[in-house]
Amino acid sequence: MVLTPQNTTIGFIGTGVMGASMAGHLLAAGYPLRVHTRTKSKAEKLLAAGAAWEDSVAAVAKAANVIITMVGFPNDVEQVYLGRDGIVANAAPGAYLIDMTTSKPSLARQIHEAAKARGLHALDAPVSGGDIGARNATLSIMVGGGAQAFEAVKPILEKMGKNIVLQGGAGAGQHTKMCNQVAIAGMMMGVCEAMAYAKKSGLDPQTVLKSISGGAAGSWALTNLAPRIIAGDFAPGFFVKHFIKDMGIAIEESRQMGLKPAGLELAKSLYDRLASQGGSDLGTHALYKLYD
Amino acid sequence: MVLTPQNTTIGFIGTGVMGASMAGHLLAAGYPLRVHTRTKSKAEKLLAAGAAWEDSVAAVAKAANVIITMVGFPNDVEQVYLGRDGIVANAAPGAYLIDMTTSKPSLARQIHEAAKARGLHALDAPVSGGDIGARNATLSIMVGGGAQAFEAVKPILEKMGKNIVLQGGAGAGQHTKMCNQVAIAGMMMGVCEAMAYAKKSGLDPQTVLKSISGGAAGSWALTNLAPRIIAGDFAPGFFVKHFIKDMGIAIEESRQMGLKPAGLELAKSLYDRLASQGGSDLGTHALYKLYD
Repeated sequence: MVLTPQNTTIGFIGTGVMGASMAGHLLAAGYPLRVHTRTKSKAEKLLAAGAAWEDSVAAVAKAANVIITMVGFPNDVEQVYLGRDGIVANAAPGAYLIDMTTSKPSLARQIHEAAKARGLHALDAPVSGGDIGARNATLSIMVGGGAQAFEAVKPILEKMGKNIVLQGGAGAGQHTKMCNQVAIAGMMMGVCEAMAYAKKSGLDPQTVLKSISGGAAGSWALTNLAPRIIAGDFAPGFFVKHFIKDMGIAIEESRQMGLKPAGLELAKSLYDRLASQGGSDLGTHALYKLYD
Repeated sequence: MVLTPQNTTIGFIGTGVMGASMAGHLLAAGYPLRVHTRTKSKAEKLLAAGAAWEDSVAAVAKAANVIITMVGFPNDVEQVYLGRDGIVANAAPGAYLIDMTTSKPSLARQIHEAAKARGLHALDAPVSGGDIGARNATLSIMVGGGAQAFEAVKPILEKMGKNIVLQGGAGAGQHTKMCNQVAIAGMMMGVCEAMAYAKKSGLDPQTVLKSISGGAAGSWALTNLAPRIIAGDFAPGFFVKHFIKDMGIAIEESRQMGLKPAGLELAKSLYDRLASQGGSDLGTHALYKLYD
């Protein structure tokens, strides 16, 4: 079945900064939208634009044949999907469930199995690209689950992102997102320590970037975050507290696989320290503050 | 004075993989070239192309008004510049001395002062871009020293590189190169740990790169080195042993500045372990082997 705005009702659970933008694109594309989120005020813009409010997760699950979730932590994911009033217990057979939260690969597999037992198609589909990617529908979407389910919902995912890749079976999307976060963890230490070195050694950090941004030290973070560090602007693109959550998942999964990612563990401990000093709600580049 | 092939003789000391390519560009641009290097066979191509051999550092220094060095370690730099038979003692007043070795900022300042006392203009001008950058004359050149000396030798540097930036006074070129290496140190842990995670979790690492290379995890290393890791090709672009040298300098300088770069220190310890397991002559991306 091809999912079109004519035969599809999308349920969207979790309309925070990311979710609200993503759901907005679906609404703009003509899909009927039923929404629920913990704090109703965060859905107001969507409701004004034509989305319908549902009072519970179960009500969304019953009203829609494609259910998308973008919530906070693995505990939220577990409750929203596997709780007694959750999606798996309430969705109609044949429905597609897409969790776009960054969450545990093992939980994604568990949800996939529970969904399958009820004739539901579950995909894990975390994203990267942040609030800007969500707003501009340029997210990278990393998908785990069945190939047929992936093909069925792909036109919907394409309303929210640009680089949409099926990475493997259930959990593979989450694992891929972990690879992304592991690479970033090392990179952030490198960028923040390099900027701290530049300042302490009396160089002009802006001029240093001219020499190093285009070469082997070049990275998205050096291009996009180092200028913010230099400007003293530590507002979040991506929150420290969310990055800590992601690194925690990656470390837990690594241990289960017998992998010891020393750089990741160090980065996590540094970010924990930053959070304990009040930095939870700053952007990840605020790691610089530990060195300054 | 504008330095042209008509009024300039360039002395080049150290014609290893990098130096030979760099000196070749100067020769091709028409500059008379006098060369000396520890192992004469490494200069043979240059000699065949028209460079003249000198039997000692002192002889090069006496014969040239621009002297460029590209040697191995800070000890070599110190000996070549400040030894009794070195450049500073033997160059004619007014000569330009350009050390392009990655070396200690403090040593660069020391050479600058000793040179100044003899009426010589010393610049530190380390590069990034590796053997390919040297071959294609696309090196990034980070310069420390006087503005007038920089302007004088710039046309010569332009024969070897593309992104040539005066970063400040003596030592500033070396400090900038350290910033470059510090950023790379964190990034390499991130890239290698992400690739190890991808493999251990059963993902297809090539497909993972499709999802993560273009976003916030993106970096020169992820684009250029991760594919080599996947292919099991650990041949050096940049040698582990040279990276260890650079990180050692950066850590020493950091301590003197009261900076504690925990990520850099961890990276150095991991690379030391890799070297102790026989990895010195591999490329920096061989760090992956510690996790595999």
